[in-house]
Amino acid sequence: MQQYFVNGRAENPVIIRDRDTAKHMFSVMRLVAGDEVVLVFDDGIKRLAKVLSAENHSFELIEDLPDNVELPVQVTIASGFPKGDKLDLISQKATELGAAAIWAYPADWSVVKWDGKKLAKKEEKLAKIVLGAAEQSKRNRVPEVKLFDQKAAFLEQLTGFDKIFIAYEETAKAGDLSALARELETVETGQKILFIFGPEGGISPKEIELFEQAGGIKVGLGPRILRTETAPLYALSVLSYALEMKEFKSLDS
Amino acid sequence: MQQYFVNGRAENPVIIRDRDTAKHMFSVMRLVAGDEVVLVFDDGIKRLAKVLSAENHSFELIEDLPDNVELPVQVTIASGFPKGDKLDLISQKATELGAAAIWAYPADWSVVKWDGKKLAKKEEKLAKIVLGAAEQSKRNRVPEVKLFDQKAAFLEQLTGFDKIFIAYEETAKAGDLSALARELETVETGQKILFIFGPEGGISPKEIELFEQAGGIKVGLGPRILRTETAPLYALSVLSYALEMKEFKSLDS
Repeated sequence: MQQYFVNGRAENPVIIRDRDTAKHMFSVMRLVAGDEVVLVFDDGIKRLAKVLSAENHSFELIEDLPDNVELPVQVTIASGFPKGDKLDLISQKATELGAAAIWAYPADWSVVKWDGKKLAKKEEKLAKIVLGAAEQSKRNRVPEVKLFDQKAAFLEQLTGFDKIFIAYEETAKAGDLSALARELETVETGQKILFIFGPEGGISPKEIELFEQAGGIKVGLGPRILRTETAPLYALSVLSYALEMKEFKSLDS
Repeated sequence: MQQYFVNGRAENPVIIRDRDTAKHMFSVMRLVAGDEVVLVFDDGIKRLAKVLSAENHSFELIEDLPDNVELPVQVTIASGFPKGDKLDLISQKATELGAAAIWAYPADWSVVKWDGKKLAKKEEKLAKIVLGAAEQSKRNRVPEVKLFDQKAAFLEQLTGFDKIFIAYEETAKAGDLSALARELETVETGQKILFIFGPEGGISPKEIELFEQAGGIKVGLGPRILRTETAPLYALSVLSYALEMKEFKSLDS
């Protein structure tokens, strides 16, 4: 069933005020009175809703749905500004894979230089991609999108996390493939986790130092060299496996 | 260091006969006598090689390199023909993530219909993408690319695997998130594993039946709905984690 995110708190009946959402509902999907969709408000609870009036864009809330597909931890992905449209792919896929937030920062070795205007435009585009992906993958939350125009502003945010992982391929090359697996065994439900990735050229030694000073732990992501846009997808998939499949496994057995 | 795959067995000296490879080496990278690269022949061993003559496209093999980044199992990814250029993305990313082979088959619910000519052209394009990705991610093997024009031909291949997983989101929806984790504990080094994915519309009930008759096991890939091109990346990442990180972990501790 089609799912939509609606800003604000759940009220009954609901009037859809967001223009893009209303357009998709009544022009693209051509919903008519009696049709059902899933609406998700700021509380992250999915609710079954029935169109009252297509003309007034109004819905009646029928019932809460128990379905919760969020990761048991809040994962923020932070990518060094990559080239071209790679952030589009990262944002879409990271949303499908359960990220709570998708950030990007100007890394020492980022080739692209995005100024304030370009950054705002890019952020807006990514927010749309993320909203669409969150609806399609039936998320309970829309990931936050944030592009930092200064690295200092990004560094200031590092204090807000329980764990910070630095994706660093030299760690894997040095033969330690297990750092991430070891660390994930200590992760607890509800924790805030930050995963930092470099741009195409990687993370500079100076940045590694800064991230480590903030408590970051270097981890490899397998023995193969992953492109900058692939690494976050690997990390999120592994988190899902370690915290969702294995967790459920222990409950089962 | 730049890596190239060379068809055939290692011989010393080596003459590069593949036109595209020679062009990349001597026109794009402008290698000159004395420059070093890594060459990988059919045996999958990386060898340090030094340019003898840029004019003759010849190299001297210096030494074998111990570096092996292949997954401990041979994983084949089989996607139902997806729309547009999605196979390009799947092929590139599956190569980075360690797939041994990338297959696609005409699924019941595939929207696209590719005939023989289109298929051959597409296969050729994918082979180039895969070669480039294998070089960039420093693989020891170039994954096989195979597009089946008939589903029957694909089904005939199912007997050649030790384990067949069917990516099936209903399994996860039904609350069993642990099927894949349980199965991966029984996987042994060197086994041949097939992972079957549906196209955008999913795998038809008839196909599920056929795949199960061939020994396929339905597994979910986490609680979120993944797009057809994202599911193989999740599966490969999880295999890497379960078989590479965890394996190394047990050796460490």
